[in-house]
Amino acid sequence: MIDILIEKIKEKNNPTVAGLDPKLDYVPEEMKAAAFKEYGETFKGAAEAILAFNKTLIDSLYDIVPAVKPQAAYYEMYGLEGLRCMKETIDYAKSKGMYVILDGKRGDIGATSEAYAKAYLGKTELGSVIQPAFDADCLTVNPYLGTDGIKPFTDQCIANGKGIFVLVKTSNKSSGELQDLKSDGKFIYEHMADLVKNWGADLIGTYGYSSVGAVVGATYPEQAEALRERMPHTYFLVPGYGAQGGKASDVAKSFNRDGLGAIVNASRSIMCAYQKNGGSLGDAAREEAIRMRDDILDALGRK
Amino acid sequence: MIDILIEKIKEKNNPTVAGLDPKLDYVPEEMKAAAFKEYGETFKGAAEAILAFNKTLIDSLYDIVPAVKPQAAYYEMYGLEGLRCMKETIDYAKSKGMYVILDGKRGDIGATSEAYAKAYLGKTELGSVIQPAFDADCLTVNPYLGTDGIKPFTDQCIANGKGIFVLVKTSNKSSGELQDLKSDGKFIYEHMADLVKNWGADLIGTYGYSSVGAVVGATYPEQAEALRERMPHTYFLVPGYGAQGGKASDVAKSFNRDGLGAIVNASRSIMCAYQKNGGSLGDAAREEAIRMRDDILDALGRK
Repeated sequence: MIDILIEKIKEKNNPTVAGLDPKLDYVPEEMKAAAFKEYGETFKGAAEAILAFNKTLIDSLYDIVPAVKPQAAYYEMYGLEGLRCMKETIDYAKSKGMYVILDGKRGDIGATSEAYAKAYLGKTELGSVIQPAFDADCLTVNPYLGTDGIKPFTDQCIANGKGIFVLVKTSNKSSGELQDLKSDGKFIYEHMADLVKNWGADLIGTYGYSSVGAVVGATYPEQAEALRERMPHTYFLVPGYGAQGGKASDVAKSFNRDGLGAIVNASRSIMCAYQKNGGSLGDAAREEAIRMRDDILDALGRK
Repeated sequence: MIDILIEKIKEKNNPTVAGLDPKLDYVPEEMKAAAFKEYGETFKGAAEAILAFNKTLIDSLYDIVPAVKPQAAYYEMYGLEGLRCMKETIDYAKSKGMYVILDGKRGDIGATSEAYAKAYLGKTELGSVIQPAFDADCLTVNPYLGTDGIKPFTDQCIANGKGIFVLVKTSNKSSGELQDLKSDGKFIYEHMADLVKNWGADLIGTYGYSSVGAVVGATYPEQAEALRERMPHTYFLVPGYGAQGGKASDVAKSFNRDGLGAIVNASRSIMCAYQKNGGSLGDAAREEAIRMRDDILDALGRK
C-alpha cells in the first residue's frame, strides 16, 4: 500500500530511494577479496561480496532513507547465488524497516503476470501450504501488453497491501522512440498515463495517492511536469537523478504542492560515493544520501 | 544464432516449440505426491515435482520437437528452488539437443539490459573467471524503452551466437490498448516492427533470417499477415495457438513461402494433454505435439 511508503517518507522527511544495482566493480576491493578468498571466484563468492556490500549500505542508510530499490538484473546475472543474494537483501532491508521496491519491470499476458505477481507481491500455493517467494513491498511493471497483463498485479496489491510502479516515461535516451509517438493528439506516454490512472483508481489510500504508481524519468522534466498535472493521484518513481543527468530542479517537477507524489531514485551516486569522494563505503554513501535529500528538499522549498 | 534454430526446425520438419509454463496443477498427482513426500510441501518439493514433470515432457518430445520455451514467471513464483529448476530445465533440454527460448520478456535502460543480457545470453565476470549464469539460446525481450534497451541484447547475440524475440503484437486480448494505437498512419506494432527490422539488420544468417525475431500472436491473424510482409527477414515466435484460440490457418499467416519464418508455441495443450485425453503425461504430450505439428504442416501445405 502506498500509505506505508508515504509514512516512511514523511517520518524520515526524505523522498528518496537508494537503488541497489550492485556491479562487482562497485564493491570495495577488500570486501571482494574476502569473499573470493572464502568462496573462490565463483557465483557464490560474487554473491557473498555483493550481499556484504548491500548490508553495509543498508546499515548506513536505514535510519535516514525510507526505501531501497534492488534492480533484479544485477542479481540475475549472478545466477542462483545472485538471486539468493537478492532475496536476502530484500529480507534484510525489510528487517531494518525499509520499504523495498523490486525493480524487475515484469509484465506478460494475464496468466503469466499472475505468476510474476505471486512471485514478487503475493504467495505461492505448495500443496496445502501457502508461502511468499520473494515478498517485496512493491514491483516495477511494464505495460506493453495492456490491462490484462496489469490486472494480476493490482489484484495482488489489493490482496496483500502491496504497490506497483508502471513504466510511463522512462529516463533513457531512446525512450522517445515508442513513448513519444503521438496518437489521437496524445503522446504514447500520455496514453499510458491515462491507463495507469484507471488501473489505480480503486486503490487510492489515506493520503490521496494510489498504490498503482508510475515510473517517470528525471531526465525529461517537461514531460514530468505535464504528467504530474495529468495524474494528480499517482505516485511517481523517478529514476535518472545524479549519474544519469537529472538535477534537483528537474525532479522537483514530479512532486505535488503537498510535498508528496514522488520518490527519487539514485543508485550509482550513492553506491559509488566512496570511490568518488573517499571515506568508507558506508560513510560516503550516507553523506551522499544526505546531500541528495537536502538537494531535493531545497529544490522543493524553492518550488 | 537463428541458423541453429532453423536447422533444428528443418531436421525435425516441425516449426513448433513446447512451452514449459509448469503450474503445480499441471503436474500428475503421483509425481507431486512423491516430491512432497520426499521434500515436504515446500518450494523444494514443488520445484522437484516440476523438474520431474519437465524432464518427462522433454524426454517424450526431444526427438520430434526442436525447441522448448520455459516461461520464467512460473519458476520465479517458486523462489530460489524454482529458479534452480529453471536452470536445470534449460540444461536438460540443451543436453537433449533442444533449442531453449527463455520467455522472460526482459528489458530496461541500457546498463540494466546489459546485466539481463549477460544473465541469459552471455557470461558474467567473477574476478578473473568468466561464467554463464543461465545460458539460454534465446530470450524474449520487451521493447518499451527503445533502442538503447535492446542493443545490449543484440551485442550478446553477436558475441555468443544467441537470439532474441522482441514483443511486437502480443496474443492477449488487451494487447491493442497500446499496440494498436495509430501514429503517423502506422499502428504502434508496425512502428515496433520497423524498429525490430533495424535492430536485426546486421544479424541475418544463412537462411535469410535475422537473430532478432519478433513475437506475433496467433490470435491476430490479419495483423500477422501484414507484419509477415512488412518484415520478411524476421523470424516470428507465435504464441496463442490452441488453448488461447489460435488455429493452424491463423498461424500459417506468420510463415513465408519457404515454409520458414515462424515457430509456433503451445504450452498448456501439450503439458495438459494427459488430463484431457488420458494416457501417461509423456505419451499424451507426444501425441498432442505430433497432432499440432501435422495440423500446422497441413495448413502450410494448403497455403
